[in-house]
Amino acid sequence: MSPTINNQSPKYYIDGVLQNDIAILSRAITLVESTNETHKLVAKQILEGVLSKTGNSFRLGITGVPGVGKSTFIESFGKIVVEKGHKLAVLAVDPSSNKSKGSILGDKTRMEELSAMQNVYIRPSPSSGSLGGIAKATYETTLLCEAAGFDFIIVETVGVGQSEVAVSKITDFFLLLMLAGAGDELQGIKRGIMEMADSIVITKADGKNLEKAKAAKMEFAQAMHYLQLPESGFVPKVEVCSAIENKGIKEIYDLIINYKAYTIANDYFDKKRKDQQFELLLGAIDDRLKAVFYDDKKIRKILSEIKSNQNNKNLLPFGLGIDLVNEFLFRNSG
Amino acid sequence: MSPTINNQSPKYYIDGVLQNDIAILSRAITLVESTNETHKLVAKQILEGVLSKTGNSFRLGITGVPGVGKSTFIESFGKIVVEKGHKLAVLAVDPSSNKSKGSILGDKTRMEELSAMQNVYIRPSPSSGSLGGIAKATYETTLLCEAAGFDFIIVETVGVGQSEVAVSKITDFFLLLMLAGAGDELQGIKRGIMEMADSIVITKADGKNLEKAKAAKMEFAQAMHYLQLPESGFVPKVEVCSAIENKGIKEIYDLIINYKAYTIANDYFDKKRKDQQFELLLGAIDDRLKAVFYDDKKIRKILSEIKSNQNNKNLLPFGLGIDLVNEFLFRNSG
Repeated sequence: MSPTINNQSPKYYIDGVLQNDIAILSRAITLVESTNETHKLVAKQILEGVLSKTGNSFRLGITGVPGVGKSTFIESFGKIVVEKGHKLAVLAVDPSSNKSKGSILGDKTRMEELSAMQNVYIRPSPSSGSLGGIAKATYETTLLCEAAGFDFIIVETVGVGQSEVAVSKITDFFLLLMLAGAGDELQGIKRGIMEMADSIVITKADGKNLEKAKAAKMEFAQAMHYLQLPESGFVPKVEVCSAIENKGIKEIYDLIINYKAYTIANDYFDKKRKDQQFELLLGAIDDRLKAVFYDDKKIRKILSEIKSNQNNKNLLPFGLGIDLVNEFLFRNSG
Repeated sequence: MSPTINNQSPKYYIDGVLQNDIAILSRAITLVESTNETHKLVAKQILEGVLSKTGNSFRLGITGVPGVGKSTFIESFGKIVVEKGHKLAVLAVDPSSNKSKGSILGDKTRMEELSAMQNVYIRPSPSSGSLGGIAKATYETTLLCEAAGFDFIIVETVGVGQSEVAVSKITDFFLLLMLAGAGDELQGIKRGIMEMADSIVITKADGKNLEKAKAAKMEFAQAMHYLQLPESGFVPKVEVCSAIENKGIKEIYDLIINYKAYTIANDYFDKKRKDQQFELLLGAIDDRLKAVFYDDKKIRKILSEIKSNQNNKNLLPFGLGIDLVNEFLFRNSG
């Protein structure tokens, strides 16, 4: 017998998602995000039931520090996406919202016009949990949205900490939003983020900021020039835009569509998705191995004794690590 | 029956190491570095046999980019250590030497005077293998050297890549050597390394370089000021030195001895070693779990099929990861 949630079977959710029933989609996403064991079992069956209908979207990751204007950008950009005939889902990953209680999407005035549009679905992702947990929830939410017919998915994250790494691993194109600051434009950027970016957009290029933004564009383009050409073969672009004046937004849409056509033509699009899937699998394996091991009663007892033992001079960490794993793995296979 | 290597039992190595027989110590280190299963078994017995005689050294990690003058510094610094009555072992970790065939210690003219001194033992660590493997070999080599009576251990590594993270996890004090460059002194330093450093030394502070070095000292001291106070409670110092003119070296020895006294007095010295040991244990557990899992014939077959399958749309990485681990762990426990 299938497990049920609120007396609803996996089939109820599968049918609802495939029929683009937004209320059921939202509840299915909640199940995918849940850490409850029954919920996880139902979520797995839902995902398996919709899997053949997934994959048919363009997955766009967007990152940038707080204040760069991510919401304003996505509001303007998202309208173009919808005008072009796409069904758009916006997922927000915000690991910081643990403290700030949902800084990305808690405020309902954010993306006001976009959220009122037909064919647009906006959803914050779970804010807590490990990086692996965030990647899992966001990836599987993407699959559910695709199964519901959304063919353009934006995954938004704050460019601090490590969540942008997780997002870059589950999206087709990773866009870095930057501000034209005063002085050295390259100050404060993590080099690793620039290397992950498929392109950079300098926001708020309007009014007194316009000249600064243009200068920053040149500086960034030069910096990008020193980085290795990405595996995609697509040379990262640096663009400026003003979401308020609605300038340069359409050009970024064209840039992304060009990237898609370019990487489909050179077979990188599918290769990247396949590589990502395999990387996610390896990450899931590592997480699961550790979870089962550290959840073992006997192991927990031993580790807690070691930790509280004040005299651990006679402990060989590498030898003991091997012994503990061997004892755990082979205790039942006698 | 105990395993033997070249007809020598673990006891032969244990006795030799404890009697400070350098030839036997060197061969014991080779066993500790070996990936051969018989060697590993002997190495484990040797380590267990000497374990009660370990721990009685000061472990100093030294890092810096190529060209900063690590060898010259260690040559001058090491002489002071020996003059103070210590027995000194210098271990070099050089992950880059895979390509350059032993750039750190391959050249025998390096540390010429130091290596000719009584009570000095210089040994390169294995250059290849995973970070976990390098940490294991270097940590266990440190234990063998301590058992052989060396009470001051320098672990040297190149400040590129990640080996400095491994070294900082197995030493009591982590010293970062820096050059006074032209222009912005903070360019090109990985912030993470500065945060790991217990102190910074600006090398080659002589001749035309002296003024630049003094300016750099102020700039670094200011940058360090913004970092959080380390858990040790010891405020990181920035010093200048000239190994050629033999200036400032003695001051660095005093600084390190002060650190030792300070952290022994506030109980941080033992706490750090205990924490390090526990971290090494957790790392060893993770490495072993993965090693056994990925070595499993059935798992390898499944993963290789997934990897070569061109149509993997119907694959849920997170669900599959859990299933594979469960199948592996519970297949024998019926």
